[in-house]
Amino acid sequence: MTITVAIDCMGGDHGPAVTVPAALAFVRDTPDASVVLVGQEDVLRKYVGAADLPRVTLRHASQIIGMDESPSLALRNKKDSSMRVAIDLVRHGEADACVSAGNTGALMAISRFVLKMLPGIDRPAICASLPTQSGHTHVLDLGANVDCSPEHLLQFGIMGASLVGAIEHNDRPTVGILNIGEEEIKGNDVVKRAADLLRDSGLNFIGNVEGDGLYKGEAEVVVCDGFVGNVALKTSEGLAQMLAFFLRQEFGRNMLTRLIAVLALPVLKRFKNRLDHRRYNGACLLGLKGIVVKSHGSADAFSYGFAIARAADAVRTGVLARIAERVAQGQTQPEPA
Amino acid sequence: MTITVAIDCMGGDHGPAVTVPAALAFVRDTPDASVVLVGQEDVLRKYVGAADLPRVTLRHASQIIGMDESPSLALRNKKDSSMRVAIDLVRHGEADACVSAGNTGALMAISRFVLKMLPGIDRPAICASLPTQSGHTHVLDLGANVDCSPEHLLQFGIMGASLVGAIEHNDRPTVGILNIGEEEIKGNDVVKRAADLLRDSGLNFIGNVEGDGLYKGEAEVVVCDGFVGNVALKTSEGLAQMLAFFLRQEFGRNMLTRLIAVLALPVLKRFKNRLDHRRYNGACLLGLKGIVVKSHGSADAFSYGFAIARAADAVRTGVLARIAERVAQGQTQPEPA
Repeated sequence: MTITVAIDCMGGDHGPAVTVPAALAFVRDTPDASVVLVGQEDVLRKYVGAADLPRVTLRHASQIIGMDESPSLALRNKKDSSMRVAIDLVRHGEADACVSAGNTGALMAISRFVLKMLPGIDRPAICASLPTQSGHTHVLDLGANVDCSPEHLLQFGIMGASLVGAIEHNDRPTVGILNIGEEEIKGNDVVKRAADLLRDSGLNFIGNVEGDGLYKGEAEVVVCDGFVGNVALKTSEGLAQMLAFFLRQEFGRNMLTRLIAVLALPVLKRFKNRLDHRRYNGACLLGLKGIVVKSHGSADAFSYGFAIARAADAVRTGVLARIAERVAQGQTQPEPA
Repeated sequence: MTITVAIDCMGGDHGPAVTVPAALAFVRDTPDASVVLVGQEDVLRKYVGAADLPRVTLRHASQIIGMDESPSLALRNKKDSSMRVAIDLVRHGEADACVSAGNTGALMAISRFVLKMLPGIDRPAICASLPTQSGHTHVLDLGANVDCSPEHLLQFGIMGASLVGAIEHNDRPTVGILNIGEEEIKGNDVVKRAADLLRDSGLNFIGNVEGDGLYKGEAEVVVCDGFVGNVALKTSEGLAQMLAFFLRQEFGRNMLTRLIAVLALPVLKRFKNRLDHRRYNGACLLGLKGIVVKSHGSADAFSYGFAIARAADAVRTGVLARIAERVAQGQTQPEPA
């Protein structure tokens, strides 16, 4: 099986300076994969070089969607943008997946318009993996939907469980709902009704998960509306940055502490690696009839590589078919006997 | 000025084993303060000792409100509970403030019933201080209100700004609203309309703050609904715990890393102290006609002491009068010329 990933090379804060080296490293390290680099060809050539490389194709796209551009305007006016062309490649079967670090709203809108939703799914959801004390957890939605109905949250649960089922060969991952108390009476009406739907869905639903439970690994899949999910994710990023800043400050306080820092460097490095958010880059847009992975806009090449690898993994493990099958079976898959 | 703080000694996971030693340490260290220890007298005596202590009064209350008890039942049936009696003391002017580590829902319901709301404020809000890269920020609501209207969020802004104004002598603290994007178009309808109200309020409103902005110290006061605020707070707690766990794991890996840990101990200790959530214990219930401070249920004596100190500070700085005045002036305080 050869996997082809289309890369929106012009998207993100750094554009081709990051996306092209990451894509080239990816094909070098992944013998069964090829990439289509989408963007302004003269610009791309500067990063690729003049010679043709094996399993690397260039596809010209004349336009670029700005990071702050209105999604609806981008959808209407940027039909030859690198993002749009990359998604079109997926639509036409020329690529198995696409990756973009561009404008999230535009990526959602264009993906939805071009690829369409799976039957039975109303809205795409952004799903990413977070580290936990014992492994990791998948959380969705992380910002695509600011107002969700209980039915949407149920669909997120089904999609998240299908994703984890496919990529981790775990047929009945635990599913929780983000809430503000462990007791069933807590939370707002939408969350309470969603919990009822999830409880009757046949999913391996374990009930409420509080904010701290996310990092304790209380559930393998955690659903929430996009507003809450985005706040939880960004709050975590901010806290991690602050802690790193404090740690640097304390180790940089004087000659002695700087000397200790040198001694402790291997330990601190391993600690840093475990948390490195770059390794968690790449959020899947679930619910579409195609695989679209969103990279963090500020990703460097190392980080962007993880987003590409995530897209390839999703293709390799048949995530899309799995979600479609689960959704088609309806939300009432029976529990195992 | 003598400050009297009523202590709900039976509340919290550890009850009088934590609350009484913390209260005794507080009066010992605070010459202008006295405490009223509320709870089952025979139990309290075990921790206080037989002799009378200066500035320490015992007040018997026969009942205890359980951590999982229904707030409405607690309100109706537990009129002689330690929590209720402590709040009654505030109501009758026998104490200037009360502190409880008990059932949050019951504390809200009973405080609201006994003390009543300030005119112009619909609901109490839980407000706590969080550390930031450059200082700290006050966030509200942290869990009292799961569904908020734009007007509620405006009231939170006014109350939070008054609190910071009083305790930090800062008349125009910056106020932000927690949202999922910096652009004004982002967020849900309630947040957008609340931002409009805050913009016209005369407060020093700086606009949207994203999750990571909380820890960057982008605003001195950040308002949000209680669901989102609680998730942000608990997610932070969970992440901090996970990071501490990883750090311990990495330093405990082998003989060498353990040796390095010993050398690095003073640095790691200072790092830990800066983040110690126990120092941030004590959330104010704002909007009531009286000062009520909620301690974390699992607080130890060191941590509980901070909650008592916070209550005393709120009395000393006249927070209540300040909020009442601001609210009475209406939400349209003019900007300074």
